[in-house]
Amino acid sequence: MPILVMKFGGTSVADLDRIRNAAQKVRREVDRGYDVIVIVSAMSGKTNELVGWVNQTSPLFDAREYDAVVSSGENVTAGLMALTLQEMDIPARSWQGWQVPLKTSSAHSAARILDIPRANIDQKFAEGMKVAVVAGFQGISEEGRITTLGRGGSDTTAVAFAAAFAAERCDIYTDVDGIYTTDPRITKKARKLEKIAFEEMLELASLGAKVLQTRSVELAMRYKVRLRVLSSFEETDEASGTLVCDEEEIMESKVVSGVAYSRDEAKLTLLSVADRPGIAAAIFTPLSQAGINVDMIVQNVSADGRTDMTFSCPVDQVLRAEKAMNEARARGEINFDELAQDTEVCKVSVVGIGMRSHAGVAAKMFEALKAENINIKVISTSEIKISVLIDRKYMELAVQALHDAFGLDKAA
Amino acid sequence: MPILVMKFGGTSVADLDRIRNAAQKVRREVDRGYDVIVIVSAMSGKTNELVGWVNQTSPLFDAREYDAVVSSGENVTAGLMALTLQEMDIPARSWQGWQVPLKTSSAHSAARILDIPRANIDQKFAEGMKVAVVAGFQGISEEGRITTLGRGGSDTTAVAFAAAFAAERCDIYTDVDGIYTTDPRITKKARKLEKIAFEEMLELASLGAKVLQTRSVELAMRYKVRLRVLSSFEETDEASGTLVCDEEEIMESKVVSGVAYSRDEAKLTLLSVADRPGIAAAIFTPLSQAGINVDMIVQNVSADGRTDMTFSCPVDQVLRAEKAMNEARARGEINFDELAQDTEVCKVSVVGIGMRSHAGVAAKMFEALKAENINIKVISTSEIKISVLIDRKYMELAVQALHDAFGLDKAA
Repeated sequence: MPILVMKFGGTSVADLDRIRNAAQKVRREVDRGYDVIVIVSAMSGKTNELVGWVNQTSPLFDAREYDAVVSSGENVTAGLMALTLQEMDIPARSWQGWQVPLKTSSAHSAARILDIPRANIDQKFAEGMKVAVVAGFQGISEEGRITTLGRGGSDTTAVAFAAAFAAERCDIYTDVDGIYTTDPRITKKARKLEKIAFEEMLELASLGAKVLQTRSVELAMRYKVRLRVLSSFEETDEASGTLVCDEEEIMESKVVSGVAYSRDEAKLTLLSVADRPGIAAAIFTPLSQAGINVDMIVQNVSADGRTDMTFSCPVDQVLRAEKAMNEARARGEINFDELAQDTEVCKVSVVGIGMRSHAGVAAKMFEALKAENINIKVISTSEIKISVLIDRKYMELAVQALHDAFGLDKAA
Repeated sequence: MPILVMKFGGTSVADLDRIRNAAQKVRREVDRGYDVIVIVSAMSGKTNELVGWVNQTSPLFDAREYDAVVSSGENVTAGLMALTLQEMDIPARSWQGWQVPLKTSSAHSAARILDIPRANIDQKFAEGMKVAVVAGFQGISEEGRITTLGRGGSDTTAVAFAAAFAAERCDIYTDVDGIYTTDPRITKKARKLEKIAFEEMLELASLGAKVLQTRSVELAMRYKVRLRVLSSFEETDEASGTLVCDEEEIMESKVVSGVAYSRDEAKLTLLSVADRPGIAAAIFTPLSQAGINVDMIVQNVSADGRTDMTFSCPVDQVLRAEKAMNEARARGEINFDELAQDTEVCKVSVVGIGMRSHAGVAAKMFEALKAENINIKVISTSEIKISVLIDRKYMELAVQALHDAFGLDKAA
């Protein structure tokens, strides 16, 4: 039998009715002839409740006990889903992570999956079971302790199972019906993509299109697991949602696939820094140690042995960044005249694997922004992405203009 | 190090404050030099919520999935208790049933404990851990599935651990401060017992003093585990609560230790039953198959080959009992003229190991009831117990009279 992995997130199993609704979708795939592995999250809100209890009990908690507590939510939904399927006369049973066993590293609360032996579940499929329901997000360490994979880890569980069982596809049921060319709240012209390449999805995810956990997309890309994102709350068929796949499966792709944004960015500039070897390390090491997520970095042309160093980070990390820089200066590690701040900026990016083979994307982007009189403050590029920092008040305008400029409202 | 087992029920771990309070009691025992095994129930209400979900999902549920779901509540409290103890700088960790492993039969949702290997926990004690926190009520079957021991199974878990680890004592923390000579709501003269024998506790528990699960007392009696019942919500010391122990530990015991009652009983009489060999089986087998908890049974003296058969059962099972008897008559298995019912009765019992060596307890009991003009409808006796069925309206009066008659308000 071909195997299909189906993953249901917290809102998709938030109560018994929704679990029944999800089970109907599983039944449809069983009827089509699949053996199905279902990965479930905890009912929405449950994991947050458990995390809250742990934090209240012990602010610097033992991550092993944290994992033992917070993994319990998935166990509940796994059992309830198996029971719901049995009520529909579908042979099903639940597995907790340690029962599979889903083996992980011992990095508690951020464990990496090491191995998913197939024997136990394969045997049950051979005996006539049609659906294996697996509690997502959790595994077992070599020491026999329960581990968790970090928030959103159920997506990663699903992809790992799809890879281990050579599944035909991994369907991620969630509360959106697919991946869009941009946020439909910003422009009604946003269009659902039929397909998107793994690399593009990674850029979109890390840029704020929070549909899939980044790690799960990386894993899918490595093992070439075809991922489909689709809605739990609509009638769905084989053409629903968006397929995240290898770029070779995408015949005719546009140069740009989507426009992403990140609203609350800040731009910091260290003015008049001594331009010497090692200065970048002297600046960014203390920032990293302070937990600052530095994103874009630009170094000005040097003059008289001095330069300006500009970087961006989330706006709520500015105070910490400032403190880290002042402390580094006090320790004599760096020297600068001033730390200029602009906390009213946002980041807008265009993403597309087609950029690799098409020149002129940057020029077209800058033209479109210029036509709206939007000033670009920082530019950064990768193989398949161009990002700019601009004033936050122009964010929606920029997204709309770029969406139009690259013709994203029209099918490829 | 001597080992102590401490068990905290659902109300004792109902929220984070109460878990902290319980942890203080654990700390006191660690300070006294014990290695402690703590058995926890789920936060009160949690198990009922999970059971409710299972019943709503699947009225005839797969007990294996039921167990997987309902065991999750204990996992949460075990982790939180371990974290709370760690916050107090007490080396502690949690164990789920399968991690110990607490091995059980495969009778899901009513599993029997088969074995508790000590190696894992002993090793941690040897490494300096002071407290092993174990999720109560759950274990693992030979097939690697999660099992549960039935409601109240955490008491049984605690006693089984105390037996396996040769613990000095098993302290059951609950919402009452001990075992009383009778229900203090019925007479203010009720007195807390310092000690009570296993056999007496069994009679009291099965008669409605619902402090300890009957099974846990049986297990304690078999392995001579000294059980102490005491309050989570009061300051407690080594003399608190009631010790349930072997009768040899009780030097001076009264003839009668307590007066128990069961309010909602019914008395049923099959009139004019053919008195032939096998008639009792013909009556009580269908009752048992219908799930009727028959308690007292009295057969009248036979006359003309016919007799009357009287039995008692909980009042809410009368309809089912009636149906079972009428069906047995319809199948020609039994014959009777009428099924007389008295649904306005209760049972009152006096219990005490001293009865074995003292005559006259029954006479004294009947005198005391007669003095209050209370008519006895059925009598049944065991080695250490005498029970009577009387009109329900006299229940409180009878309990008070018997409590006085046997001098239970005075210390032994």
